[in-house]
Amino acid sequence: MNDPITLKLNADKYIMMALEEDITSEDISTNSVMPEYQKGEVQLICKQDGIIAGLGVFKRVFELLDDTVEFEMNVKDGDEVKKGQLMAVVTGDIRALLSGERTALNYLQRMSGIATYTNSIVKLLAGSKTTLLDTRKTTPNMRIFEKYAVKVGGATNHRYNLSDAVMLKDNHIGAAGGITEAVKRARAYVSFVNKIEVEVENIDMAREAAEAGADIIMLDNMTPEQMKEAIKVIDGRALTECSGNVTKENIKNIIDVGVDYVSSGALTHSAPIMDISLKNLHAI
Amino acid sequence: MNDPITLKLNADKYIMMALEEDITSEDISTNSVMPEYQKGEVQLICKQDGIIAGLGVFKRVFELLDDTVEFEMNVKDGDEVKKGQLMAVVTGDIRALLSGERTALNYLQRMSGIATYTNSIVKLLAGSKTTLLDTRKTTPNMRIFEKYAVKVGGATNHRYNLSDAVMLKDNHIGAAGGITEAVKRARAYVSFVNKIEVEVENIDMAREAAEAGADIIMLDNMTPEQMKEAIKVIDGRALTECSGNVTKENIKNIIDVGVDYVSSGALTHSAPIMDISLKNLHAI
Amino acid sequence: MNDPITLKLNADKYIMMALEEDITSEDISTNSVMPEYQKGEVQLICKQDGIIAGLGVFKRVFELLDDTVEFEMNVKDGDEVKKGQLMAVVTGDIRALLSGERTALNYLQRMSGIATYTNSIVKLLAGSKTTLLDTRKTTPNMRIFEKYAVKVGGATNHRYNLSDAVMLKDNHIGAAGGITEAVKRARAYVSFVNKIEVEVENIDMAREAAEAGADIIMLDNMTPEQMKEAIKVIDGRALTECSGNVTKENIKNIIDVGVDYVSSGALTHSAPIMDISLKNLHAI
Amino acid sequence: MNDPITLKLNADKYIMMALEEDITSEDISTNSVMPEYQKGEVQLICKQDGIIAGLGVFKRVFELLDDTVEFEMNVKDGDEVKKGQLMAVVTGDIRALLSGERTALNYLQRMSGIATYTNSIVKLLAGSKTTLLDTRKTTPNMRIFEKYAVKVGGATNHRYNLSDAVMLKDNHIGAAGGITEAVKRARAYVSFVNKIEVEVENIDMAREAAEAGADIIMLDNMTPEQMKEAIKVIDGRALTECSGNVTKENIKNIIDVGVDYVSSGALTHSAPIMDISLKNLHAI
Amino acid sequence: MNDPITLKLNADKYIMMALEEDITSEDISTNSVMPEYQKGEVQLICKQDGIIAGLGVFKRVFELLDDTVEFEMNVKDGDEVKKGQLMAVVTGDIRALLSGERTALNYLQRMSGIATYTNSIVKLLAGSKTTLLDTRKTTPNMRIFEKYAVKVGGATNHRYNLSDAVMLKDNHIGAAGGITEAVKRARAYVSFVNKIEVEVENIDMAREAAEAGADIIMLDNMTPEQMKEAIKVIDGRALTECSGNVTKENIKNIIDVGVDYVSSGALTHSAPIMDISLKNLHAI
Amino acid sequence: MNDPITLKLNADKYIMMALEEDITSEDISTNSVMPEYQKGEVQLICKQDGIIAGLGVFKRVFELLDDTVEFEMNVKDGDEVKKGQLMAVVTGDIRALLSGERTALNYLQRMSGIATYTNSIVKLLAGSKTTLLDTRKTTPNMRIFEKYAVKVGGATNHRYNLSDAVMLKDNHIGAAGGITEAVKRARAYVSFVNKIEVEVENIDMAREAAEAGADIIMLDNMTPEQMKEAIKVIDGRALTECSGNVTKENIKNIIDVGVDYVSSGALTHSAPIMDISLKNLHAI
Repeated sequence: MNDPITLKLNADKYIMMALEEDITSEDISTNSVMPEYQKGEVQLICKQDGIIAGLGVFKRVFELLDDTVEFEMNVKDGDEVKKGQLMAVVTGDIRALLSGERTALNYLQRMSGIATYTNSIVKLLAGSKTTLLDTRKTTPNMRIFEKYAVKVGGATNHRYNLSDAVMLKDNHIGAAGGITEAVKRARAYVSFVNKIEVEVENIDMAREAAEAGADIIMLDNMTPEQMKEAIKVIDGRALTECSGNVTKENIKNIIDVGVDYVSSGALTHSAPIMDISLKNLHAI
Repeated sequence: MNDPITLKLNADKYIMMALEEDITSEDISTNSVMPEYQKGEVQLICKQDGIIAGLGVFKRVFELLDDTVEFEMNVKDGDEVKKGQLMAVVTGDIRALLSGERTALNYLQRMSGIATYTNSIVKLLAGSKTTLLDTRKTTPNMRIFEKYAVKVGGATNHRYNLSDAVMLKDNHIGAAGGITEAVKRARAYVSFVNKIEVEVENIDMAREAAEAGADIIMLDNMTPEQMKEAIKVIDGRALTECSGNVTKENIKNIIDVGVDYVSSGALTHSAPIMDISLKNLHAI
Repeated sequence: MNDPITLKLNADKYIMMALEEDITSEDISTNSVMPEYQKGEVQLICKQDGIIAGLGVFKRVFELLDDTVEFEMNVKDGDEVKKGQLMAVVTGDIRALLSGERTALNYLQRMSGIATYTNSIVKLLAGSKTTLLDTRKTTPNMRIFEKYAVKVGGATNHRYNLSDAVMLKDNHIGAAGGITEAVKRARAYVSFVNKIEVEVENIDMAREAAEAGADIIMLDNMTPEQMKEAIKVIDGRALTECSGNVTKENIKNIIDVGVDYVSSGALTHSAPIMDISLKNLHAI
Repeated sequence: MNDPITLKLNADKYIMMALEEDITSEDISTNSVMPEYQKGEVQLICKQDGIIAGLGVFKRVFELLDDTVEFEMNVKDGDEVKKGQLMAVVTGDIRALLSGERTALNYLQRMSGIATYTNSIVKLLAGSKTTLLDTRKTTPNMRIFEKYAVKVGGATNHRYNLSDAVMLKDNHIGAAGGITEAVKRARAYVSFVNKIEVEVENIDMAREAAEAGADIIMLDNMTPEQMKEAIKVIDGRALTECSGNVTKENIKNIIDVGVDYVSSGALTHSAPIMDISLKNLHAI
Repeated sequence: MNDPITLKLNADKYIMMALEEDITSEDISTNSVMPEYQKGEVQLICKQDGIIAGLGVFKRVFELLDDTVEFEMNVKDGDEVKKGQLMAVVTGDIRALLSGERTALNYLQRMSGIATYTNSIVKLLAGSKTTLLDTRKTTPNMRIFEKYAVKVGGATNHRYNLSDAVMLKDNHIGAAGGITEAVKRARAYVSFVNKIEVEVENIDMAREAAEAGADIIMLDNMTPEQMKEAIKVIDGRALTECSGNVTKENIKNIIDVGVDYVSSGALTHSAPIMDISLKNLHAI
Repeated sequence: MNDPITLKLNADKYIMMALEEDITSEDISTNSVMPEYQKGEVQLICKQDGIIAGLGVFKRVFELLDDTVEFEMNVKDGDEVKKGQLMAVVTGDIRALLSGERTALNYLQRMSGIATYTNSIVKLLAGSKTTLLDTRKTTPNMRIFEKYAVKVGGATNHRYNLSDAVMLKDNHIGAAGGITEAVKRARAYVSFVNKIEVEVENIDMAREAAEAGADIIMLDNMTPEQMKEAIKVIDGRALTECSGNVTKENIKNIIDVGVDYVSSGALTHSAPIMDISLKNLHAI
């Protein structure tokens, strides 16, 4: 999300659409009063403590509007920032600074909110063998931005989409006639680089999945005790994941279970935004 | 957001991109085990009380994947729904039901979350002369969906984007050399159907904006007392709006002020999602 | 239409499509004889008196084909130009000058034709209180260019499209069951920044529209006398507009009526082009 | 322009863009008062005599908005129509009829205007051996529509764009070092199905072009006498074309010359629109 | 490639572009002589023995041009077909059958050629423990079609692209400072569902890769003896792959080595097409 | 394919799609270990003798990924290259060199393979009056690249697509009721710059086509003797083409026939790729 190739090939189309969404014909306020190029600068100020994420996207919004824009960055993605901190100074055509402000902040606030929230859960898992994962419960057309923010916050990404890993749920298993057959069909169908995950609800299913050669086994709706037993049965033949409504309150129970991964949809669908603003815009 | 014209011209491009984001080549899990068309049905269940919004978009996701999909709807946008309620039954190609599930729910949960949160603020303003507004602090590429959800929740939309109304802030005013000149230039520049809003910080500015012919005057960072005085000075020559960090706690102060509109970015950037799921998928 | 942001976000997609329309694979004439970069220059000459408009678009066509192109501009949009006048000199890759010529001129001639024709009508209204407006009768995929040209010619834009202002005609009024109800429903449905216009055919309708809170009232198919009476009845509660087949001949009748605005589809659908050419192309 | 393949592959992208240009978010007037499907019908009435062209595009606009729309057509492209004539009845969702009206008419009026104007020139050439041609002086992003209208009006199309035929002008000839060499290079470069046209200014150039094997020779800025001599020199070895400011007044001079083709930019850049309207919309 | 979801979301954009590439304005031959819908049928005949692949894409080409097209299929993807065999009968608008023929066959011939060639190599590996893989050496914008054809031919897909699996080559290893560190960084960076492959050139590198936790180890440029030793050293801790210029002649050497996978770029970049034609088109 | 205009208007969209096909989110291998810009260089080495074609496209792939990339070119399109030859050195961001390598080579190898194969056939025709042509049997979405490679190899292009020349086959002739009528209708329908080709199967048809004014006559499935007679009958009134399965073995028979053109689908659908690689990538 910071390298130019990813931005150009995959982020730009979303950012351009977001700009077009906000500027369907032109910025009529700015164009009313500023007919000519006027160099200006503006400060990026943090209004809340947290983990900053999305600075590359923030910059890209302005770069797409103005070839001459420049940035003086005091922080980088992943840094802890404090309320009131001057994070960056942006200089460029004052019209671009005005027209791009809202879109740039909409990305940065949301991504930083996710990184901050994710990081708070990661800290609760510190010391355990369990790694925090996100899910596909992302905002439509925000996945590359939100999954990146999750990584900045210190967690690991689950599969990116329906094409890069197999997840066999009850309906898939039912259609194949059983876990063993479902895993076999998937192995025959997919690339040999794709991992296969199976969702299981009890010990017998966990055993069958492990024997069938699943790479990952998701323990669904099990009690901590059941999970411990399942992990024993699986015995290292597959990675283990638990899901469900993980909260700051109940996450301690999971730590002791010894599951490899715990996934949480809340990281992307419920993280509150981080308050950030552009201040003191003035011509220079 | 429910009529076919708006869906086709403006929603489909976002929905298709969201589907492509989730299915970059194919749904390898489903295609591994279900090579043929198989009719199935699934239930849309509410897992939390709230106001439902986005059913048209939810349906569209499946329609774009499967021409044969059908819906039996028990609720419509704006309805209050209860935890456990069966809101709809979807029937169609079971592969489309599996492949579209996540995208359809990602839209519906977010839109319903916004409608629910918005409605809770609208209720606090009941009885006052003040109307609740959203802002441009929406998630990138989600504006038409989020602004629609705000309306379903009972509030009114502020300007859609930078092209459909003028908002003159300190930088615009400074560039023009004063409020009167800025309004004059905007009036000359924009279509006669575009309204002009001016952001003011004190009574003198409010008076000048009203005299300059502003259609709307935003009272920025004023105390309730200052706002009352500003409204008296404006004396019906323009609509009045107050903004800032409106919360459930402090909104009572605003009610008494008598401002026409109060806008809140939180409606779209901080509403928690509403928990909704697709359950009991089975072949029929 | 001259600022880089509007060009990039909204004009470029149309200009690129126009270039692709004219060059579906390559310029086979030019590529047959000019395999290498060769710097050249060409003169932009006016072949008819008029108001020039669209120079930013003219330049953009070449900039999109050639990074090295440069312009020496002797005129700017809105200037009165004379037959034979050297308006600009363009220097760059001679292949780009040849390949872009037709598309650049197609835009410039049409936009200047509209500005010139509009200006001739604006002059007829000089001294009156009536402002000239365009309509949505623009050439498909030319609206941003044509509406801009109308402004350069000295008139004001009516609504940009179906999304930025309400126009309630007989069918809308009928569907709602009357003017009052139609205005009420529109006010409830649209953003508070959208103005509402009502089309009326007689004095009673004009009165009802004014009382219902319409922002603009269009007086449709009324005689000058009826319009005068309608304006009296409306009494400043709404802006007034008259439409219909306004021509140079009959526009005098309107001047005396005292209507605020008069709209004319002819500005965009019937303005003759202005003859302009690129001459004396040569290598340098 | 009437067959479904051309519409789908080449017209739809322009028509969709035109609809999006007119409906950037939604038709707020219609959606305010008509929340549900309501079947309606409307009449397509001619308000001026002329040649109708573009009915396929007119229909397509509505088909893209409403799957249920139906047409009862009384005329077909190329028919002479009379003021007041009922040309068609359209039935469908009344919301689609309202939202699509302007875009459908903008296409139909412009295309019919071109067909009508073209036909009036074609009639002046009746009895001569000279065929009327259009040029590339079309409105950007309207070429397929405008060139089709020219054909409906009875003229023939010149090259569609810079990729489907060679036109060697003075700069190309100069770059190659002469007509003979330019034709030779073009013949070597282009597909053997592409014709090569050479623009000549005098008899010697005409002779050289004919000898070099040009398929078409354009006689540029020659007097009728010079053209006659050039045609004699060319002696059937190439088709001949004359261009320049052909008008109804001066076209008679050309008839006697005996040139094969005469091209006129005015067909597409200066034809006045034909007045057409949709009337008597009502629910059924 | 046969299910409607994959076709709609991922194949259609390529197929539409291919049709636009072949029909930039219209099919002028067909439209010259067939102005109206005329039902016709045509036979799909095999002109060479082989494995057929791509029938879903073949059908889609016509479906995109003509809603009424129907297919009577005698074969399905993966079937062995014989020279002269009638594989299918297509009925629909004769104009669509003519206009779509070339594009439909261009896909089908290429995909069947790949399936046929792949299958011939797969047969050579029969009985061994080694599975045949493709590579990313596909024709640009043909990957989903070509990788699908490889599967139809009986081989397995290697990674789809640069985003769904890690391949650490010498430059990556060098940048990280060694295999162990490179694998560690990759594990930290990527989703836990992404497999990591390491390319090694000798036994020591193979050992380090296995110990570092690589999922797959590619044995690059090793002799059969070296590969055997490497496999012994890896000892089941990772899957093994060998690459290089695998041909029908030298593949026997690989069989005895006991490597898990062998990849071959030739499957997609050098498979000769399979000759197939549409014959006996006639109106019905 | 080397001039910036053609690249920008027509090649870039295909190249960008090809890059997105290979990098759906990001290059996870490279981004794992190379977080920062690092200048590097790599050598383009020929691994097989042949004719190089596509260097402009090869360069463009990297330019689209990295603004700073530079090329030191030792060869140009059309040059004969030898196994082991250093053709170019590319310097730029090492991440772009890694991420773009496969796409750049996929284009270059395929295009050079076509040029090389084409050239080998062209040499067989040396001294005859017969010119080699390609066909529309190109790989979907590769036509501009493959037709260019054919020209680099020394052959001439047949029509580019269905829109730039008429080809009347048996079905077209049947629909019109005969060759004469089909040619007449086509002449009336198409632009006067479009050539008309007629496919004939015997001498009588050849005579009728010549008399009807066909520009090109394709002699389909005739013996050399029949072709000679047909050419005599046509007697220079039209160009002649023969098609069919031209191979290196049977092409000699054609040479003596004296046909103007011979077309071969194999040039684009069966040319083996040329082996080329990027070697010795290292940081500098």
